[in-house]
Formats: sequence, C-alpha cells, structure tokens
Amino acid sequence: MPITGDQTLLKQLNRMAIVRCVRQRAGQSRADLAKETGLTKSTVSLLVQELIDEGWLQENAIQITGALGRRPTPLVVDPSRLAMVGAELGVDFIHVVGVSLVGEIISYSKEPVVGVDPKTVLGRLGAMLIQEVAIVRDAGRKVLGIGVGLPGAMDEAAGLLKVAPNLGWRRVDVASVLRAALADAGLSALPLWMQNEADVAALGEFEFGDAPVRDPLVYLSLGIGVGAGIVVNDRLFSGAAGFAGEVGHSILQVAGPRCSCGREGCAEAFIGLRAVAQQAAQQGEEGPSVAALADRIAHAEPQAVSAAARAGHYLGVLMQNLWTTFDPGRFVLGGPTCELGAPMLDAARETLSRYARDAGVPMPEVRLSRYGSRAVAAGAAAMVLHKIVRPLQKTA
Amino acid sequence: MPITGDQTLLKQLNRMAIVRCVRQRAGQSRADLAKETGLTKSTVSLLVQELIDEGWLQENAIQITGALGRRPTPLVVDPSRLAMVGAELGVDFIHVVGVSLVGEIISYSKEPVVGVDPKTVLGRLGAMLIQEVAIVRDAGRKVLGIGVGLPGAMDEAAGLLKVAPNLGWRRVDVASVLRAALADAGLSALPLWMQNEADVAALGEFEFGDAPVRDPLVYLSLGIGVGAGIVVNDRLFSGAAGFAGEVGHSILQVAGPRCSCGREGCAEAFIGLRAVAQQAAQQGEEGPSVAALADRIAHAEPQAVSAAARAGHYLGVLMQNLWTTFDPGRFVLGGPTCELGAPMLDAARETLSRYARDAGVPMPEVRLSRYGSRAVAAGAAAMVLHKIVRPLQKTA
Repeated sequence: MPITGDQTLLKQLNRMAIVRCVRQRAGQSRADLAKETGLTKSTVSLLVQELIDEGWLQENAIQITGALGRRPTPLVVDPSRLAMVGAELGVDFIHVVGVSLVGEIISYSKEPVVGVDPKTVLGRLGAMLIQEVAIVRDAGRKVLGIGVGLPGAMDEAAGLLKVAPNLGWRRVDVASVLRAALADAGLSALPLWMQNEADVAALGEFEFGDAPVRDPLVYLSLGIGVGAGIVVNDRLFSGAAGFAGEVGHSILQVAGPRCSCGREGCAEAFIGLRAVAQQAAQQGEEGPSVAALADRIAHAEPQAVSAAARAGHYLGVLMQNLWTTFDPGRFVLGGPTCELGAPMLDAARETLSRYARDAGVPMPEVRLSRYGSRAVAAGAAAMVLHKIVRPLQKTA
Repeated sequence: MPITGDQTLLKQLNRMAIVRCVRQRAGQSRADLAKETGLTKSTVSLLVQELIDEGWLQENAIQITGALGRRPTPLVVDPSRLAMVGAELGVDFIHVVGVSLVGEIISYSKEPVVGVDPKTVLGRLGAMLIQEVAIVRDAGRKVLGIGVGLPGAMDEAAGLLKVAPNLGWRRVDVASVLRAALADAGLSALPLWMQNEADVAALGEFEFGDAPVRDPLVYLSLGIGVGAGIVVNDRLFSGAAGFAGEVGHSILQVAGPRCSCGREGCAEAFIGLRAVAQQAAQQGEEGPSVAALADRIAHAEPQAVSAAARAGHYLGVLMQNLWTTFDPGRFVLGGPTCELGAPMLDAARETLSRYARDAGVPMPEVRLSRYGSRAVAAGAAAMVLHKIVRPLQKTA
C-alpha cells in the first residue's frame, strides 16, 4: 500500500533512515547522508540536529588533515546517552541488562527463578525490569524501550506466550502482566517487545555482531532446548504461527532416540543438554550440570569429552542441514552448551567441514555469540533498537 | 530509505497497489479501493480507468439486487487481454506456456532437448519463447513479460546460471543469450526474469494456488533433483548466494547412502528419482523411467510399490524437518515423482502425520501443485506478474 501523507510518520521514517545510514557506516557527513537518503541537505541538517539533541548521534571531533580546508563534520552513533533494557526469562534464572546504542552491556543482573507459577515469575521479572530502568536512568541515560526473550513460541502482536514446554506454560499473556507492572511504576510510556529467546539472540548478533553481517543469519540456541533464530531480508523469520526455527525437532536419524517432544531421532535428542548429560553420566549418576561437565572436560575425563564430541558431531549435521536449507551468510552459536568448549565445537566444525569437502563447496562462516551467556538478554535489548529504527516494518 | 519524488514510480506503485487489492479480493468498487489504498477517490478513478484501458481490470456487470438504488460497479481482474509467457528449461525437455492474469494456461508447447551445449539449448529455448509470444499475440493478448525456470542456482540480478549439476553447466550467462535472441526478433522491450525451477514453481502456487495461500509457502520440487522454493514475507527466499532451498542435500540419515553431491545420507539419495528407480529395478535392469514405474505401480507390482512407498516415507521425514524449520502455512508438492501417485504420497502423509501425532500437534496442510508437470513453466509466467505488481521489491 502506498504511504499516505502522515507527516509525523514520514518524519520518523526519515529520521530513522538517517540513523540506519550512520549505523551502517560511521563518519558520514550531512552531505553524505543527503546523497544516501535522497533528502535535501536542509532537511538532513534539521533532522541530524534533532537526533544529536536527543542522544542518537554525535559529531566526531573534526580531524586536522594535511588536505586543504575544513573537512565536513563526521557523524557517529552516540554511545553514551541512550540505552535499551533487555531481559531473558530462562527456565531457572532471569537475566536483565542495559545495553548502549553501540551494543555495550552497561549494567547487568541475574537472579535464580524460584517456582514456575507465571504470576510469581513475571512479578519478579517486572520488578527486575523496573529496577534496571532506574539504574540506567541514574547513570544519566534515556531508556528507549524494553525487550524480553522467552523460552517458547510467541504470538508477538498479542504479547502472548503460546507454549513454553520447559517452563510448563501454555497461553500466558506476558504482555498484560508486564505492562501492568510497568504502569504501576509510572513506566507505561516505555515501549515493550517480546519474542522467543533464539529470535532475540539472533537480533542481538544481527544488530551488534562483531563483524558486518550477511543476511540470512542463523543463530543456534544450544541448551536444554535447541532452536534457531533466523534473520532473513532484514527481519526475523517466525513462520505462519510463530513456530519457525524449531530445528531441535528436525530429524537427524530416522527411528533414533526418543525426544522430549515425543518424536524419535530429533536433533535435540542428540544435542540437547539432557542428552549430553545422559551420555556423560557415570554409573548411577543423575545427569551432571553444564558446569560439572565443563570441569570434567577441563580435566580430560574421557566419557565427558566423548559425550561433548558426540553432541558436536550431531550439531555439525544440523548445521549442514540448515546450511543447505538457508544458505546463511553466517552461523552464530550461543547458549550454555557452548561452555563445553573445544571438544564439542571442534567436532561440530569438523563434521560440517567434512560435508563441505564431500560436496566440494566452501564451508559457511561459524562464530560464537558475541555475548556468551548473556546472548538472549542482550538480544532482547537489541530487539528494541531493531524495531525503533524500522518504523514501518510489520511483525513477520 | 525514503521514497523520493519520482512521480512515474509513485504512479506505478499506486496502480499496482490497486491491482494487488483487486487480485486479493475481487468485486471491490472504486470507493472500496480508495479506502483500502488511502488514495483519493478521484485518483483511484483515474488509475482504474487506465488499468481498464490497458487490460488489467474489467467492470463486472452491475448486479440487479433487491436492495434500493444502484450498487457501485464491482471490479475484477480481466482474464482475457493480458498474458505472461513462461518456460521451463528441464534436463531433457523445454516447456513453454502462455498464462492469463488469473493463472489459466492459454497455450502450451513441449520439445525434447537434444544435446547439452548451452548455445544450442538456449538457442532452441529462445526460438520457442519467440514463437509463444507470437501465439499469444495472435490470440489478441498483450504479453507483459517472459519468465524462465532453470534447473540450478541463479544469480538473479546478473541473469547468470551459477551451476546446474544435472545439465553439467557452470556460470552460463543465460540472460545475455536470451536477450540477444529476443532483440533479434524485435522483442527487446519485453521484460525477462530468470530463477531456479523450484523457486518459480513456488511463485506459481503463491500467485495462482487454488486456495488462498498462507505465508510461508514451501514448494517441494520432486524429480531427479529434490529442492524447495520458499516464499516468506511475500518474497522468494534465496539465501546469501542463491543456494537456499537445496533441501535435497539435507541429511536424513547419518552415514546413509552416498548422494550424487558427494555427501552421505542426503534426502535426494532416498527420494530422488534415481534412488527410487534403483530400488524398483529388476535384476539386471537399468533404472526404469517415471512412466514405466507409474505403469508398474498401476499394475500393483510389489517391488515398484514398495520403492515408491520407501521414497514417500523419507519425503515425510523431509517435510517434518521443513515443517519444524519453517512453520509453513502450506506445503505444495510438484515435479515428475508425484506421478508415482498414491503409494508415494500416502506414505509421505502417513509419516508426517505420525510425527505430528507423536508430538501432539496438528499436521500442516499438504497439497499437490495446481499445474502438475507444468508447474515450473506456469510458475515462470507467474513470476512475471509477481515482479510487475511489486515495483519496489528488491531481489531477495
């Protein structure tokens, strides 16, 4: 549909087009931006001044060069005056972070979750978000909005968590509960977005990855659950009903081991943390924790190393399948399972590279998440920026 | 980036917005369209008159109803005055079709391909396209453009066929060869688009499927090769380098049978026509053709039935994997392997439905292609319409 004459929207589109340009290439001048956006120089000057006043952009010191004359003032994203707040609601913990416009984590807190009752858990999450907003404001920054990553499938438009198997939740109206808590704290004006944990982590890498990203980006969330967040054509890809990326339940072995979902041979039944722990468990032992496994691997305990390598091998198979399916510009791996380190990661790369050799094609890029164990919380904060700088983007 | 003041482009955007509205819901009046597009009634009237004059739309006869007064004139897509030409360059045949604005195949031709030399084959394809344009014009229609589906990965912007394993072609500049042929015939003004065969077939189902389509749509092309065309957010999804959808080379069984690509256990090594033919072959026999296999299945020959069922079972596993990965609104199956009929298709559905039962979730929709063996040629024609009604859409 054509854009009608809504001047406020048009202005915000143009302002955010300028922000996107400066984010893509720092140091552009007002004249560069006019060329890039198709706006007149006077419009650009006006909007840039607003963006500077509001904390989006800053002028870099003018460089004295050997060339004649004064160089036009380079503009960069201001890292110091705005921030986004992000949270991860995990199965047994809550992470909350404040993140700057350039992706630095400026504050951080973590608490264990006690119980699984939605009201209690969301009450705690709301309180932590409100506290984080206060911390960021006390540090002299304006908060642009709040993002939350959740361990399940979301109806993003309705703010409804449709199903979160590892929490045992079904159809929880997360948005209403959090909005009520924010309103009680006088924060009802703050925009709030929610999305699946792998999806927000993918956005974190897409917005703030430590090297320019080529679309599509496939983020693999590796923990008790195994899922993918996928960015395609500059947007999250979430499928017809929000269930896209459930790649932990793609079959790697017909009639393989039974998965928690009820199917046989799912990727999660090979790569999921419970499967790894079971492989590594000593006689009579309950499944060890990630920390215990990582410790055993550090001491070169053969059964733990072999369990991690087996999971890595199947992770390589899963990446091979996602590679042929998505042709990604980059894979990013994140989540607690990454703490198993080299035995798992090397096995994954080796398997993927063997498939690449067999087919005579170069291997795709594979990286670890920039944010490590904070990938979901930082990604939830990145989602706020992702949404704000794309005012017209529909929910996928 | 904001839209700058290009009046011609703006007009075309508004015209095509109107066409998209009428295609989505037939029978809308000019007043409905003004509401829907945000344009003024006088602009809509002006543009609708142009679209009627050019053969895009027509006024339906005004219905006499019991209600008082004259009803506003309903507008519908005109099926009779415009057409698109589409072609499939197959491994051993060329299909060419003319398709109306509402997806009817109005003319059709097929020839075997002799030899594999790109110059000869593309020369023949060019001649057939020129002939089809003449046939469509002789029938009193204007041709909007030409689309071609090819059995390999395309660089769409450059019109370059990067690699087509089953033709044995690498880096063939299809666009230049065809454009030269069209220019020689005085047809250089006709727009020309090219894309991978599964991709164009997906567009054919997306534009002209026999029931409203929910995004994402996954089209599975089943023949010697196995690939997917995927429509996401109203666009083709083609990956970082045009190789997305190569799902025939996702692994269904670790250390399974060797695939033509060099990997082991690929979907194609279970579902591809060569694998089916090999399973069905009698002692000492070369792999039978699809027609021969279909005939044996019609006579209930046990080995052929069981080979088809085995392929169908693995097709079900592949669909299960694409289901969890894409959460599609619809699967569409097409290509020659579909001619094996019930033993294959029933086994595929049964496997997919078993996974759905195991996981306690409803099964996704699975349909056969509307166009059968003409799915790629008709899809190539549909691509022409798909592109023209989205003037700003970048190549994915």
